[in-house]
Amino acid sequence: MELLSILVTLLVLFALARLGNRLFERFGMPGLIGEIIIGILIANIAINGTSLLDVLGLQMPSPGSELPYSEQYSVLYTLSELGVIFLLFSVGLETKVSNLLSVGKTALLVAILGVVIPMLLGCAYIMATDGNFHHAMFLGAAMVATSVGITARVIKDLHLIEKRESRIIIGAAVIDDVLGMIVLAIVKGVAGSDGGVSIGGIALIIIEACVFVLAIIAIAKWVVPRIYDWNQKRKAAYTERTGRIPQGFNDFILGIIVCLAFAALAEYIGLAAIIGSFLAGMLFADHAWESGMDKKVDSLTTFLISFFFLVVGLQVDLSQFSSVGVIVTTVIVIALALISKYVGCFAGARIGEHMDNKSCNIIGVGMIPRGEVGIIVATIGLNTVVDGSTALSPELYSIIVMMAVATTIIAPPILTRMYKAKYPGEFTVTSDDRI
Amino acid sequence: MELLSILVTLLVLFALARLGNRLFERFGMPGLIGEIIIGILIANIAINGTSLLDVLGLQMPSPGSELPYSEQYSVLYTLSELGVIFLLFSVGLETKVSNLLSVGKTALLVAILGVVIPMLLGCAYIMATDGNFHHAMFLGAAMVATSVGITARVIKDLHLIEKRESRIIIGAAVIDDVLGMIVLAIVKGVAGSDGGVSIGGIALIIIEACVFVLAIIAIAKWVVPRIYDWNQKRKAAYTERTGRIPQGFNDFILGIIVCLAFAALAEYIGLAAIIGSFLAGMLFADHAWESGMDKKVDSLTTFLISFFFLVVGLQVDLSQFSSVGVIVTTVIVIALALISKYVGCFAGARIGEHMDNKSCNIIGVGMIPRGEVGIIVATIGLNTVVDGSTALSPELYSIIVMMAVATTIIAPPILTRMYKAKYPGEFTVTSDDRI
Repeated sequence: MELLSILVTLLVLFALARLGNRLFERFGMPGLIGEIIIGILIANIAINGTSLLDVLGLQMPSPGSELPYSEQYSVLYTLSELGVIFLLFSVGLETKVSNLLSVGKTALLVAILGVVIPMLLGCAYIMATDGNFHHAMFLGAAMVATSVGITARVIKDLHLIEKRESRIIIGAAVIDDVLGMIVLAIVKGVAGSDGGVSIGGIALIIIEACVFVLAIIAIAKWVVPRIYDWNQKRKAAYTERTGRIPQGFNDFILGIIVCLAFAALAEYIGLAAIIGSFLAGMLFADHAWESGMDKKVDSLTTFLISFFFLVVGLQVDLSQFSSVGVIVTTVIVIALALISKYVGCFAGARIGEHMDNKSCNIIGVGMIPRGEVGIIVATIGLNTVVDGSTALSPELYSIIVMMAVATTIIAPPILTRMYKAKYPGEFTVTSDDRI
Repeated sequence: MELLSILVTLLVLFALARLGNRLFERFGMPGLIGEIIIGILIANIAINGTSLLDVLGLQMPSPGSELPYSEQYSVLYTLSELGVIFLLFSVGLETKVSNLLSVGKTALLVAILGVVIPMLLGCAYIMATDGNFHHAMFLGAAMVATSVGITARVIKDLHLIEKRESRIIIGAAVIDDVLGMIVLAIVKGVAGSDGGVSIGGIALIIIEACVFVLAIIAIAKWVVPRIYDWNQKRKAAYTERTGRIPQGFNDFILGIIVCLAFAALAEYIGLAAIIGSFLAGMLFADHAWESGMDKKVDSLTTFLISFFFLVVGLQVDLSQFSSVGVIVTTVIVIALALISKYVGCFAGARIGEHMDNKSCNIIGVGMIPRGEVGIIVATIGLNTVVDGSTALSPELYSIIVMMAVATTIIAPPILTRMYKAKYPGEFTVTSDDRI
């Protein structure tokens, strides 16, 4: 294990990502797009026949193959996952459960319509053109889940997390991710190597997901305040008795432990790790500012999160897009992904609480980004064998990755514009707060 | 690559390390010892014949063998290295170059005497008992370098970094590490597989090391203040012209990039990465507090550093210590390591500036901890073949690791006591600042 080569890889990637970030912010676009594009460039540029990936020692795992990937890539991957886990933890820290519950009905409607419409449109398109049922199911499933990480960072950068639209988006994204996992479980069950659907298995993941989310919300609402009050009383009694301030547990350390534990638990029961860390953050939301925990988590995130957006970009293999047919399909899939999510979530917000057009636009656009979840679904499809061939073709895999990246790139600048239209003059991006 | 297994490994290690930390602090000892002991326990405990290392998926590299180590271990190792790199960066942030230069003469004397005496005593002992010249050279070299990370954390925890003794220790530790690298280069050159000493190679590393350290000190002293002033003027002019505050580069991001770059550069020219990150921190020392960069780096360190002390503990294989002869040698080597460093550095401080006994005690004890550098030297010795056998025996390797760990464990509580004797009532450990 070469410390030097890992340091150099991390240094080059971090510096390039921040350069991309800075260039895009200079032109008024969200910095994370710059980071993704740097990732795409690194993955697809070769100098004198040697790809930049090889120069950086990043042999990536290729889906469906057993080729080893390099140590540098596995370190990069872990840092990127820790980054998005801590990012969602810090979003959770700013999401009070009472606020979330106050948008509950609308968020639920936004999430359901935002899942059903993309799934149906995606399936229908593939059934009409390609005709393969499994391809259709996996493409539909990959179009379902909003990547809350992208939108969350845009909202955080604009300092508009307290707005009702932001809370609906975040609430809907959580529900939507749970629904997405359920859809994935069903699609996977249908395509499962035994050929039959395990109703029991699907029911289990639905129950687990709902119990997990509801249990944490209940704990945040009823248990945490009691523990906090008890602890405050205990501390006050200690101070009265001894005249000294008790050495409490370091909140930041406790936060990291709970965050990692919930991320692992969510991953274990079949949800995404980021759902767990988001919910973990919510447990601390009422008191995080007291110990400065939110700022400390932000510092951690600042270092790690750029690696996540880089890795999203690294997934894109531009050489797949060399035929007109593939390009046309890609464009149509991207268009469907944009329209179906926008329409579904716009409708959810309108029906849910008769919001005005500007607010419905924010919610419709804010839910557009797919990301890691869509890519995870696609990877599973590529690795599932049905009747001797993969449940998803390599071509569709690249298209899905492109769709995830494209929605991620297209949505943030529009979302920023929509927020500016609704709340002119209220947002600030300062260099010091920027992450 | 299983995200779940890595999350679980990191979660369990982090939670256990913090538990060990907390237990030791409760009994008035430095928390990092608790973290090291947790590491030793994990490496040496087996349940029903399965070692805890295997349970956690931590197949470690064993020196001299080509067995693969697990992905979890390589991730853990990287996090631990990043942790100690950022720790030294944050120590650098609190070390103003003018303060360092003000202790320069004494620090140099402390460092030189603290290198020469351990080297001579270590060599002499092995020559007298074992008689193998290469064994003697490598053991001597492994006894040379102080591990500034350990002492730095004790000083940081006590909030006594501004004291003259602290500055001498840190200055001497930097010089001492440079000297240690030079000694390593010489020993390695002597034992080199060609059998001959490359005077040119040794001269090169001596020159490189000195140029690197002196160049950075010169930059910190003369170049950085000018850049800072120019930037302040530029910002002021912008504000006057436009009425707005310019969006400067995020200092924290810049700090991370410079820190990683200097760490990689130091590693590249044959010094330890932590020397580079320490010097990088010094470049920002005059202005770090303005942007809160020091606090942000601390948050990053809080998460990562526990992994470093854990990994130090993981190196210890207790099964090596089953014969009386090995135990006796170990005890003697540890005693020599403690006495030689203490005497050398005590004498350096006394001769250098006639300090009183309490101050000389602090400096003598503060320089005692060996750590990763000693272990690195030992690993190189184990992997260097001279005349058909390794330049260091596996037995001596384990003894050196034990010596590094023992000095690391023994010094901090004594150092804490010495500081308390010199500065009664001046130190505070608050739960919030504690890292």
